[in-house]
Amino acid sequence: MSGKDPKKGKKKEVKKETGLGLSYKKDENFGEWYSEVVVSGEMIEYYDISGCYILRPWAMSIWEILQGFFNAEIKKMKIKNAYFPLFVSPAVLQKEKDHIEGFAPEVAWVTKSGESDLEVPIAIRPTSETVMYPYFSKWIRGHRDLPLRLNQWCNVVRWEFSNPTPFIRSREFLWQEGHTAFATKEESDAEVLEILELYRRIYEEFLAVPVSKGKKSELEKFAGGLYTTTVEAFIPNTGRGIQGATSHCLGQSFAKIFEINFENEKGEKAMVWQNSWGFTTRTIGVMIMVHGDDKGLVLPPKVASTQVVVIPVPYKDANTQGIYDACATTVKELNEFGIRAEADLRDNYSPGWKYSHWEMKGVPLRIEIGPKDLANNQVRAVRRDSGAKTDIPVANLAEQVKDVLITIQQNLFDVAKQKGDACVQIVKTWDEFTVALVQKKLVLAPWCDEEDVEKDVKARTKGEMGAAKTLCSPFDQPELPEGTMCFASGKPAKKWTYWGRSY
Amino acid sequence: MSGKDPKKGKKKEVKKETGLGLSYKKDENFGEWYSEVVVSGEMIEYYDISGCYILRPWAMSIWEILQGFFNAEIKKMKIKNAYFPLFVSPAVLQKEKDHIEGFAPEVAWVTKSGESDLEVPIAIRPTSETVMYPYFSKWIRGHRDLPLRLNQWCNVVRWEFSNPTPFIRSREFLWQEGHTAFATKEESDAEVLEILELYRRIYEEFLAVPVSKGKKSELEKFAGGLYTTTVEAFIPNTGRGIQGATSHCLGQSFAKIFEINFENEKGEKAMVWQNSWGFTTRTIGVMIMVHGDDKGLVLPPKVASTQVVVIPVPYKDANTQGIYDACATTVKELNEFGIRAEADLRDNYSPGWKYSHWEMKGVPLRIEIGPKDLANNQVRAVRRDSGAKTDIPVANLAEQVKDVLITIQQNLFDVAKQKGDACVQIVKTWDEFTVALVQKKLVLAPWCDEEDVEKDVKARTKGEMGAAKTLCSPFDQPELPEGTMCFASGKPAKKWTYWGRSY
Repeated sequence: MSGKDPKKGKKKEVKKETGLGLSYKKDENFGEWYSEVVVSGEMIEYYDISGCYILRPWAMSIWEILQGFFNAEIKKMKIKNAYFPLFVSPAVLQKEKDHIEGFAPEVAWVTKSGESDLEVPIAIRPTSETVMYPYFSKWIRGHRDLPLRLNQWCNVVRWEFSNPTPFIRSREFLWQEGHTAFATKEESDAEVLEILELYRRIYEEFLAVPVSKGKKSELEKFAGGLYTTTVEAFIPNTGRGIQGATSHCLGQSFAKIFEINFENEKGEKAMVWQNSWGFTTRTIGVMIMVHGDDKGLVLPPKVASTQVVVIPVPYKDANTQGIYDACATTVKELNEFGIRAEADLRDNYSPGWKYSHWEMKGVPLRIEIGPKDLANNQVRAVRRDSGAKTDIPVANLAEQVKDVLITIQQNLFDVAKQKGDACVQIVKTWDEFTVALVQKKLVLAPWCDEEDVEKDVKARTKGEMGAAKTLCSPFDQPELPEGTMCFASGKPAKKWTYWGRSY
Repeated sequence: MSGKDPKKGKKKEVKKETGLGLSYKKDENFGEWYSEVVVSGEMIEYYDISGCYILRPWAMSIWEILQGFFNAEIKKMKIKNAYFPLFVSPAVLQKEKDHIEGFAPEVAWVTKSGESDLEVPIAIRPTSETVMYPYFSKWIRGHRDLPLRLNQWCNVVRWEFSNPTPFIRSREFLWQEGHTAFATKEESDAEVLEILELYRRIYEEFLAVPVSKGKKSELEKFAGGLYTTTVEAFIPNTGRGIQGATSHCLGQSFAKIFEINFENEKGEKAMVWQNSWGFTTRTIGVMIMVHGDDKGLVLPPKVASTQVVVIPVPYKDANTQGIYDACATTVKELNEFGIRAEADLRDNYSPGWKYSHWEMKGVPLRIEIGPKDLANNQVRAVRRDSGAKTDIPVANLAEQVKDVLITIQQNLFDVAKQKGDACVQIVKTWDEFTVALVQKKLVLAPWCDEEDVEKDVKARTKGEMGAAKTLCSPFDQPELPEGTMCFASGKPAKKWTYWGRSY
């Protein structure tokens, strides 16, 4: 036997034969790599209507895990699930002027049923403020009807024409939208942040994606709302920021238009304060962009429907049945310990093919069991994130696997955090700003907080790559020494703000 | 103090004052009663687009319980959740001729986005066979790719113009739709019945609604499928049958058109066998129709988000704080035992008002705690289904409440079963048939199983109330003595079949 690893040789061969593996590299052709990895990883199937995508079970199971977490958390907060119609009548949709201006170009209209024209065209919800609030007005009479806190899980449609991208920008997507009404601004403000913290946890604790919490500029806030808070992520490969999820304080503008009034404790007529907040299937796309590599998806253990795949590695003169039995026993033991494990016992694929297949699908940990492992009462464990291989004794296997999964989850976050932090560039002048943009940096700059200046920056950076804009002003503000000037206007700066191109 | 029950007097007074209570009686004006009870019970809010309804949290929580059960069961069967787009392109929608003929008149079409006309109108899914099967064709190559078993929870749109009714017939509704493909007809047949059994359990075990399992006639089967199985319920008040949920064997007609082929174990090209199956939010409407009464909704404990409501009954010279504390303790104890209980401690409503309110909402069990109960270490329990009142000692309260809830669940089913069975009329001649229809009976009749005869029955019974048709041929067939003739055609009968008007 030569010194060459026979398995390795075989693996490469199989890759070539079967076409497993990606044609594009993440660092070289990011866009193509992403389009390929979502399909090859069996997350997405492209659909025959542009901008619509099929979410395959491998993606849907992640969504279900995020749903499970978020549902449990909002139920603790006494928020209840409801379901409002998909359709909105034009009169209601157009009631809030700023709001409809924000959404009008993207609204899909139903004008026919069967062969008949509808009397009035009907809109498909791009979001449900105007669907819900006429009924908030009906249901809320006195202060004892408050707070009213509803949520729904549903699909929404925004018929955008620019750059559809699976998960990130699609014409139909799945989300939850929370809509709440309070007697006081204080309660409303508090909820905005409570929900934002849940969004941070979805990204950081589940998807292992670091985010910055912050506030959107006036130009970037939700159309019709008072202020918008956000968790913003960053994609180093493209140097683009991406809005992760938003929690809006709507103030009283919708309450005014939809007449959502109540009698307060003093018997006086008052107007409610409202919030709305949502996160979407975009979360999954951000996770893929951040962690995926040239071998395929890399799933954080907390959201992987299969956390461990167990693969038998039989050799021709070895105890094949013993190996298969050991695989089954291992899966059983891990399942009983609460670990989502499965064995790939298919006899028509080689171990090497299976390694590539499950690497492509991003399963966090692979366990290989061959004759040597069987003889030594151990298994070979291979981490998807680092490629690190270790032999784990079968005694206490489940506990050790659990520890490895926790380590992988933390490592994915740490690596992403380090990469993201390395992209942050503090910028104080326009020249530094333009250089940083070219270098795909996430710019943190002192800003005068004037809308015209943001518009001006957008105009001056317009180009093939899209204009730069504010992403958010982070809650975690560095010190701003007195006399610091805005990088763009030269006027006195009011805050540090993240700037960049974005999705 | 007079012999008159002061609580009772107060309750009536409150009802009058607050407008609590229903204006219509179930036995006198069933349609109006239903429309009123779904709103007053806070299940539904009517929406400004006809045929669309808001599912309020009280309804949504029932849907979530059914979802939880069904999801867990299908996951045991290795069926996986996915999500396919809302939209279908016309070319794909129209591929299966019988199928599109069945759905075409109800399809809603999107023709515009923003101000622009779409190049091609796009349909909103009325069901997803044609959305999914082009991709089944892509994903299925060999016998190892089978079975392919997917499910999705989503909204669908059928723009019907006749008699929209909350839950029962709405233009948008929520459902699950399962779509599966097998190598053999045997596997396909087996799954059809396995799923149908889950649907029976949803109705009988969860909603306490008795159903008949059976097969649809050729005329009533799913458009484009091979055969349709169904669970059929019956509404005694209207004498109408209602299709509860259907599990279809599609045979190979879609496989042929969408070219869903595979290489079988012998290396030959073969065609898959397919099923599709679904249940909808209609389930909730059937439950309301069957169990509701003149006081409002009556919820079976298994699907009630609040199974027990605890109401303090303070008297002016009594230990009010002690009573409120006892209510809180009771709720805590019940919750810890896994019973969904809550207290209504609002101080601006009288106990009588609260009784009416929670009766309207159908909470299965009310617990009242007053000074006498406190003194005697007991609570007063009042069943929503029967109105029966018992005093339960606080020792072992939770266990006893659990038993009462089980009894209520069973009693609701038993009463409904008895009422339903009493409506079944065995009919052997046309004259008996027409009399039974007038008497709002569910007709069980020997039938020749000929399509023309069913069409003829429909034509002959057409009228204001709608035509009578076959509901299903029950799997549980009474004996059919040789020489039995069809009630309608006089030809030799082939099977017993349920006939009636239906929703």
